[in-house]
Amino acid sequence: MKPSRPASSDFLPHLERNNGISLERQLVHGFRQAILDGQLGHGMRLPSSRVLANTLKVNRNTVIAALEQLLAEGYLETKRGSGTFVYAQNMQAQAVTHLETARWLLPAAHLLVAPPVQSLEFRVCQIATNHFPLLSWRKSWLQAVQAAPPDDYQNALGEPSLRQAIGAYLQRARGLNSQPEDMLICNGTIQALHLICQATLQTGSSVAFEDPGFPLARQVFLSHQAKILPIPVDQDGLLVDQLPTGKNAPVLVYVTPSHQFPLGGRLSLARRLALLEWAKQNDALILEDDYDSEFRFDVPPLPPLASLDHSGRVAYIGTFSKVLTPALRLGYIISTPALRQRLCQYKTLADYQTNQPSQLAMTHFIETGALERHIAKMRRMYAHKRSTLVHALEPIAKLAKVRGLEAGINIFLECQPHVPLENIVARCAKQGLVVSTVGQYALQAKHHGLVLGYGALEPEEIIQAAKILVGAFSR
Amino acid sequence: MKPSRPASSDFLPHLERNNGISLERQLVHGFRQAILDGQLGHGMRLPSSRVLANTLKVNRNTVIAALEQLLAEGYLETKRGSGTFVYAQNMQAQAVTHLETARWLLPAAHLLVAPPVQSLEFRVCQIATNHFPLLSWRKSWLQAVQAAPPDDYQNALGEPSLRQAIGAYLQRARGLNSQPEDMLICNGTIQALHLICQATLQTGSSVAFEDPGFPLARQVFLSHQAKILPIPVDQDGLLVDQLPTGKNAPVLVYVTPSHQFPLGGRLSLARRLALLEWAKQNDALILEDDYDSEFRFDVPPLPPLASLDHSGRVAYIGTFSKVLTPALRLGYIISTPALRQRLCQYKTLADYQTNQPSQLAMTHFIETGALERHIAKMRRMYAHKRSTLVHALEPIAKLAKVRGLEAGINIFLECQPHVPLENIVARCAKQGLVVSTVGQYALQAKHHGLVLGYGALEPEEIIQAAKILVGAFSR
Repeated sequence: MKPSRPASSDFLPHLERNNGISLERQLVHGFRQAILDGQLGHGMRLPSSRVLANTLKVNRNTVIAALEQLLAEGYLETKRGSGTFVYAQNMQAQAVTHLETARWLLPAAHLLVAPPVQSLEFRVCQIATNHFPLLSWRKSWLQAVQAAPPDDYQNALGEPSLRQAIGAYLQRARGLNSQPEDMLICNGTIQALHLICQATLQTGSSVAFEDPGFPLARQVFLSHQAKILPIPVDQDGLLVDQLPTGKNAPVLVYVTPSHQFPLGGRLSLARRLALLEWAKQNDALILEDDYDSEFRFDVPPLPPLASLDHSGRVAYIGTFSKVLTPALRLGYIISTPALRQRLCQYKTLADYQTNQPSQLAMTHFIETGALERHIAKMRRMYAHKRSTLVHALEPIAKLAKVRGLEAGINIFLECQPHVPLENIVARCAKQGLVVSTVGQYALQAKHHGLVLGYGALEPEEIIQAAKILVGAFSR
Repeated sequence: MKPSRPASSDFLPHLERNNGISLERQLVHGFRQAILDGQLGHGMRLPSSRVLANTLKVNRNTVIAALEQLLAEGYLETKRGSGTFVYAQNMQAQAVTHLETARWLLPAAHLLVAPPVQSLEFRVCQIATNHFPLLSWRKSWLQAVQAAPPDDYQNALGEPSLRQAIGAYLQRARGLNSQPEDMLICNGTIQALHLICQATLQTGSSVAFEDPGFPLARQVFLSHQAKILPIPVDQDGLLVDQLPTGKNAPVLVYVTPSHQFPLGGRLSLARRLALLEWAKQNDALILEDDYDSEFRFDVPPLPPLASLDHSGRVAYIGTFSKVLTPALRLGYIISTPALRQRLCQYKTLADYQTNQPSQLAMTHFIETGALERHIAKMRRMYAHKRSTLVHALEPIAKLAKVRGLEAGINIFLECQPHVPLENIVARCAKQGLVVSTVGQYALQAKHHGLVLGYGALEPEEIIQAAKILVGAFSR
């Protein structure tokens, strides 16, 4: 018995003249799509090139070239003497499966991110960029792309010139002495923590964490299967004497000594020394997150833990997210050689190096003094906003005390125990103002109050927002 | 008995006039350093401000301001009626310990990175940047920093405009249809793999890996505690029928279908379909690393696995490292919703988002056509270099066959079994030429030959290097 003759196709691709795409390309695309969509079934025979050329009114050589490409791509096959066929195997599109479970899909990570600003909001940690030094900024970027970029990966530790510039800046601004080889450039504080976790944590390792504290940092630790030990905080920072010792001592301690997030206190010198001693006795690593120490008001700086440490147990983390913009993703870690070696390895395996043009631009921006001029300007701006806010909150001084005024761009409004916070938050929301309670940042801690970020608000917005808040208190 | 009077200090800080640093600041720094260095022991009494001012020939108010700052910083303390003392607790510097072992220092990661180019080298995967389109590049960057950067984090998936531009580019260049919401912008292929590992691998999960294959990718999998399953490769790419099935099936399969690294073959359409079918049957995820598919010579493109996949089991990874520069760290992953959701979470916890100015610059660079013009130019350049190399290797055609010519910027020089590769490498090194054997990229595979990267060499360097290589073969 003669095998049944394969079905012939009368499919013709739709062609458009003068749309800038060659007819050959349109033919290839049209046939390819029809095969993938199942319009042209597998095994179907195509009309001859002569028939196609006549029907489509296309030069036959164009048709032949298109068919040859589809043959080479494997969409078509020829059988000697009997013509051109759609490849025998089924390439037909099926409804794409949207897998929600698969053995290679691990459970989704625990991650809570603040929604974008929709209305008037005392948004914590948000900076102002409306006084951005655009001219100096552009000059620095132009400098960065003056020459062609490199043809190979660069040093995973970061550009030597940037490490030098940051080192000199930290010496001036923070009294912190470091060598360029102690520093690793990374993509902001988040990546700094991520890399340190990779280099130090095993499943179930415990991490001491300020309570209340910075949620995103906590989530990074959790994503590395760490066990979080909440440690209480007061207006002098972490209660160092509450840290477990001996075999219960955590491997890492995460602290924000310049400006505790969110209560706003500064870790006292006595506690700094006690923390260092504890780390030495218990062989633990201190992560010093110095995220916004640049914005300090009316008080002298306290020495960074990293400058007091002589036992190699501090990793100092800095960032340009608060002084410039978080969109740059530029930060650094200063640590001792053995840790830095591992951080450099994990950096290589995480993304090899930080974006190089940004590093060159930042080098220029620091070296020309533009960074420090901008910081000085913003310090004045934030100081003005801060005193505007403090003044505007005076009417409720008996109900709520302003804390954490020494530094940063948030304040903690500590409320009397009887103040109904949830009601106040709801009343503010009704008037279009978003405020957050300190409870949102706490694990076990029982502080009672609101955390108000004023960095991004203009003074008149601060007055308007504070008016709503004071009104909500007064009802 | 009267307590012994505390020791008085006669330490005086060294001051320099007219060096641009205020005397107050020099005083603070000098005392602080002396305390940290132990020159001023804990508990020591300082001379009065009057004595210090007279001795140092400094205005007394300056001395008082400096001492007040040191008091506030906690370096000094006052005792009523008896003067100013160095803080009682010991802050003296000890020799900084360089910890090589600590319980928080995990073993160093397994990481081998090619040393920087020292001499003439057939360096694999290295691109040329000497024909870089600097004017268009600068224009795109200026565009990127036209406005002030944002005051808050942006979308962790990446800039919508860039995802749109890359999607349209992939449609034109690779026939790959995708939606902007399917794409995550990341810091190059390494971060793409790193994030996928986080979202999919558990300790001991197995990953099928091309043998020979791309070492850095393998090291990323190893850093996530994966078990590597080497799968043999021939000139048509991965031997798909060698993939284990059932309970032995790996969770991930890493492939370079457009241009297998380092043998240079392209995964045939039949094997593409077989691989997709295997992934569907065995519930595995395929990582399609399309790292240099742009450089394709004299052959039509093959459809990406991602365009043939209908079961949601392909993650497509692209990068600008080979077409522009690896220093930019810009790449992307196209995947299905459930995986993309997890990738987005891990991206947030890895570094929140990719550097924004680069994303804006790249959007402009693609949208103005500069990227595709550059790729077209580089394709011609590399084609010329490739034919120069092939021609220069003709004298040893009987000993060594050139493979993997269809794509990329490396070739595989497959040698006769009796060719003494180690001797040849050594002879080349003596003449200042670095070449690598395919064995450097293999786990169990027994291919015999050299991998030659010609991308970064000028045609005359290629001729010079090939001459040395041919000479080494002939001895």
